[in-house]
Amino acid sequence: MMLSAQTTARDVGRILRVIALMPVVSIGIAAVHGEFYAVPAFALTAVVMAGIGTALSTRYQDAEPPGKLEAMVTAAMSWALTGLLGSLPFLFIAATIKYDPYPAVANTPVMNDTVSVFLRPVDAVFESMSGFTGTGLTMATKEELLPKSLHWWRSFTEWVGGVGVIVLTVAILARPGSGSLTLYESEARSEKIHPSVVSTVQEIWKIYVGLTLSSVLLFLVVGMPLWDALNHGMTGIATGGFSVHAASIGHYGDPLIEYAVVPVMVAGSIAFPVHYLIVKGELRNFYTDLQTRWVFIWFSAGSVLLTGLLHHANQYETLEETFRVALFQFVSATSNAGFGTVTIGEGTKQVWGTSPVLLSCLGMLTGAAAGSTVSGIKLIRAITLVKGTAWEIKRVFVPSSAVRYFEIGERRLKDSQFRREYTEAAVVLILWLSTLLVGVVVLLQVLSPEHPLEYVLFEVMSAQSNVGLDSGITGPTMPNLSKIMLVVNMWVGRLEIIPIAVLLSSLFQRFDLYR
Amino acid sequence: MMLSAQTTARDVGRILRVIALMPVVSIGIAAVHGEFYAVPAFALTAVVMAGIGTALSTRYQDAEPPGKLEAMVTAAMSWALTGLLGSLPFLFIAATIKYDPYPAVANTPVMNDTVSVFLRPVDAVFESMSGFTGTGLTMATKEELLPKSLHWWRSFTEWVGGVGVIVLTVAILARPGSGSLTLYESEARSEKIHPSVVSTVQEIWKIYVGLTLSSVLLFLVVGMPLWDALNHGMTGIATGGFSVHAASIGHYGDPLIEYAVVPVMVAGSIAFPVHYLIVKGELRNFYTDLQTRWVFIWFSAGSVLLTGLLHHANQYETLEETFRVALFQFVSATSNAGFGTVTIGEGTKQVWGTSPVLLSCLGMLTGAAAGSTVSGIKLIRAITLVKGTAWEIKRVFVPSSAVRYFEIGERRLKDSQFRREYTEAAVVLILWLSTLLVGVVVLLQVLSPEHPLEYVLFEVMSAQSNVGLDSGITGPTMPNLSKIMLVVNMWVGRLEIIPIAVLLSSLFQRFDLYR
Ligand SMILES: [K+]
Ligand SMILES: [K+]
Repeated sequence: MMLSAQTTARDVGRILRVIALMPVVSIGIAAVHGEFYAVPAFALTAVVMAGIGTALSTRYQDAEPPGKLEAMVTAAMSWALTGLLGSLPFLFIAATIKYDPYPAVANTPVMNDTVSVFLRPVDAVFESMSGFTGTGLTMATKEELLPKSLHWWRSFTEWVGGVGVIVLTVAILARPGSGSLTLYESEARSEKIHPSVVSTVQEIWKIYVGLTLSSVLLFLVVGMPLWDALNHGMTGIATGGFSVHAASIGHYGDPLIEYAVVPVMVAGSIAFPVHYLIVKGELRNFYTDLQTRWVFIWFSAGSVLLTGLLHHANQYETLEETFRVALFQFVSATSNAGFGTVTIGEGTKQVWGTSPVLLSCLGMLTGAAAGSTVSGIKLIRAITLVKGTAWEIKRVFVPSSAVRYFEIGERRLKDSQFRREYTEAAVVLILWLSTLLVGVVVLLQVLSPEHPLEYVLFEVMSAQSNVGLDSGITGPTMPNLSKIMLVVNMWVGRLEIIPIAVLLSSLFQRFDLYR
Repeated sequence: MMLSAQTTARDVGRILRVIALMPVVSIGIAAVHGEFYAVPAFALTAVVMAGIGTALSTRYQDAEPPGKLEAMVTAAMSWALTGLLGSLPFLFIAATIKYDPYPAVANTPVMNDTVSVFLRPVDAVFESMSGFTGTGLTMATKEELLPKSLHWWRSFTEWVGGVGVIVLTVAILARPGSGSLTLYESEARSEKIHPSVVSTVQEIWKIYVGLTLSSVLLFLVVGMPLWDALNHGMTGIATGGFSVHAASIGHYGDPLIEYAVVPVMVAGSIAFPVHYLIVKGELRNFYTDLQTRWVFIWFSAGSVLLTGLLHHANQYETLEETFRVALFQFVSATSNAGFGTVTIGEGTKQVWGTSPVLLSCLGMLTGAAAGSTVSGIKLIRAITLVKGTAWEIKRVFVPSSAVRYFEIGERRLKDSQFRREYTEAAVVLILWLSTLLVGVVVLLQVLSPEHPLEYVLFEVMSAQSNVGLDSGITGPTMPNLSKIMLVVNMWVGRLEIIPIAVLLSSLFQRFDLYR
């Protein structure tokens, strides 16, 4: 089969036209906050996005309907293009502040060091890609110095990117063997939420909005200011992790707030089809659903282990503080949310030791449930690989004629089906580790050699698993090549790698044909 | 199926009785060098080995014939037991030198710091296990201070361990799907060398002796003293890597010798069934055999890449020296030989940077051909994983009804067969990386935190892939727990992990039954 490039171009165009509504909505937010100078920036962004989108979708409107192949490539392309174009508000607003072209009524502020960074396209693209992929690594040195319009734009990109990922994994990547389609069919004991993709998206959207509002409310109750609660509620449920404060959740120095953020990150880690069933009253899915059960087991076990490692290193004063730091950071890493309450590393200066950093990396690698907003290889694949490996070893104890079933959750797989799913999970793991290695090697080449390997690994893992915790490496002063590399890691990680690999294969195939 | 413990005990006993011939032979070597004080030590070792072996094989002589399950567990157990008992010559000779119980004619030397280390059982076991697994990491600070009897014993353990591994992988681990049996059937275009295991072993033994003698001769020709040539010939073809000099091959400071060692390490990296065919005149196997072809491709590519990294870091003076160092060290790492010509790291003090260390780790991980004396996951598995991953991605371009064949070397696999082999390779990779991670975490806990992560990783990888290159961590002063951990890594790595996992599963199974 050949990829229909026209179909892909049309569908990417259609998605862009929808995305163009984002800057339109943002005009309202800017106006409400009296940041009138930001209005033209958003308007221009909307025009560019809608223009490109309409051009593509009109030019190729007669293209074939998409197949699975086109859907994958469309997902890969639209994340790339949206990430690129999402940089425009950063660029335009920074330029507006620099050149100050409007009358005083526009309220243009004076330039500061945090905003001026976004005059550079690479930094603006980094921030936008970090937002749309739900990563949360940032080029903003001090978030408090950003206009509210950009606070909003950052949170909005993560929030929309989050729902986009759920739709992607539930509707498009839900190929047999990925564990996602089968998950919804068998694990959650329901048919797909609704037969058609459109109504699936509608149901997900409702639950997503509901959970966002609940999160905002919770944050207000524990004492967060309204603007903070709104932004952190949006970036929390999206497990995006952008904050309006440089010190993230650590800014408040309030244990109550820190504990309150944890359940929001956990909620973002659970598959949205499971949320749907729970909302419908089927509470037993908390423990009957395999991935949901393991969210709680893995988050608990990892937090306790991390508490032990940090306590052993006397990193914090009291055991309560150590536990709170470990719980928050492990859940943040493994849910791929990326909020922080403490400094993990300062680039070349060690804060956390190697072992707690490696444990956090393991959490980032697994991620949580497929079908949620998290990234990483997903718990369903991790469980398949761990249980499957043990199952393969036990094979020697069984006569080769025996019929065995691989039991995972409430499913029983025949040998051939098991090998299909195990192979799929192993393919993702191997591609994941390979891309990670490329990122680490590139960063090692361009960063000063004083950065410990575990910090470099942590940073690349954070980008690729769309986490956003950092070891002090990411920032506006890092070399451009490392920014571009991390952007690629974010993109690859967000799409579970396979669509990127398919896109690259398509390009190679096409190249061969044109020779 | 249940493991027959009696069968295993009997077969381990039989193997021990054969191993007991090693100290007997060594008595002659000690006598020839006038080290008469070492004769009782070897004699006592032979008595202990033969005693335990005979006790086991006699007590259980009526046990059932072994199945595949028993063969695997026997392999795991006999490597463990041989490793333990192989420590006796170190212990006994060190004790003899300490207590000096014999008349002057026995030529007992005075004690020195290198020999006194072997008064400690854990160091003696480390050295013996490093020998029998063909690793070459050493507790000897200055090999020049060891008696010739111990030079010999170290080299002899590696040489016998090497042929043991070939027999193990060709005759016992050659299960379908491992790539080894199928390799000999299809790749090398021959049936198994000979139908029966006994004659297979005989053929391998002949080739092994022939290659050893050729290596010794080559080393003599390029100017190594006889004793050095004999020991390095034995440890070279076994890709064991023990040396009679603290500076290993770097001791000679002679480029000619360094270049001459490379082909010996390469010879040890090629499957012995392929050697057999080549000896019979079928020279085309150099390029038609998949693994052999990739030995040359991977060794060349890796050496060039390592040259680039070391040159970029200005590590050595001339480009020729940089190339020679890179070629030697990469071939040494990837062949798992472990000879060295330069210092890679000094424990807490960096010599090589992170990137060249990681590249060397990658070489150690892959290793070379299954069916040779090397360790690591083996090229056939690495190729299966890399090609198979690409093949899985291309699946989206093919209608699901299409019949595809996975081509690897000259074999064409159906989908089900492909997934079987891919799964087997992925299982080994995952177990390999997990065991490695355990080793790294344990070493991080017990070593001072000043050791860079990449050096700790390098050291554990070197142990598990039975390489023997070191980054300055291994030595008599390292904590006992880290010595024990590395011994476990060596043991697990030597047996390709699966037999160890089967052994552990058997123990768990038995434990369950007895409850
Ligand atoms: K995140
Ligand atoms: K070795």
